[in-house]
Amino acid sequence: MKLIASNTGVEIISSDRCLELLATEEIGRLGVIVGGQPHVVPVNYALDGDAIVFRSADGTKLDGAARASVVFEVDRFDRATRTGWSVIVHGRAEEVTALSDPALVDRVARVQLDPWADFPKDHVVRIVPRTITGRRVG
Amino acid sequence: MKLIASNTGVEIISSDRCLELLATEEIGRLGVIVGGQPHVVPVNYALDGDAIVFRSADGTKLDGAARASVVFEVDRFDRATRTGWSVIVHGRAEEVTALSDPALVDRVARVQLDPWADFPKDHVVRIVPRTITGRRVG
Repeated sequence: MKLIASNTGVEIISSDRCLELLATEEIGRLGVIVGGQPHVVPVNYALDGDAIVFRSADGTKLDGAARASVVFEVDRFDRATRTGWSVIVHGRAEEVTALSDPALVDRVARVQLDPWADFPKDHVVRIVPRTITGRRVG
Repeated sequence: MKLIASNTGVEIISSDRCLELLATEEIGRLGVIVGGQPHVVPVNYALDGDAIVFRSADGTKLDGAARASVVFEVDRFDRATRTGWSVIVHGRAEEVTALSDPALVDRVARVQLDPWADFPKDHVVRIVPRTITGRRVG
């Protein structure tokens, strides 16, 4: 059964299917508030259950209050067929450390997390989803 | 000459080249603050000079104060070669109306703005860039 939003006609994707779609991609866009301004950066991510994990080189993306509420967006659009989907995860970002959660550190170490940019990314960050929504167009 | 960021080793893209790259894509991600939370949505855009223009179906994306400061992100990553680029535009969003700027409305009408989602998008929005930054990885 397809769910269609009555106000827009856009197809709504179930959260289970959203997770399947998230598993097919590896680049997403992290949205945070930095100094009262919205900021978006692409990051190379992996899934750990229903959480998004990624490496971060510095604190810019996720200093202090910015961690409390973040958004993560992944999409795939086909220009030829004019079809596509997007998944948007709202949640809380937390740094993963051996002290805070040794089991999670072990798990993240096994997740394929391959930062494309060739510079050290020492921090591992996990986004715990509060909501996962998706829509499909075309 | 390539500009390399000393702290990360990532190649910095000039703003002229950023605009050329923006012209090659048609889907970007709009980042705004809604109710104190960061929000990101993909939008189908076009360039009007150095401004980003797109159609919006409703006010959700750009109500009130959200317009004062927005961010727009466009990227292209090649999974095979592990290379890619991203361009990030920070600026102010304004609705384009025949009343506010008839010449701009004419110009936007000539810009190819083809919303993939098949539902009415009555509002035309323009992002006036404050900063345009880009980086290349791989």
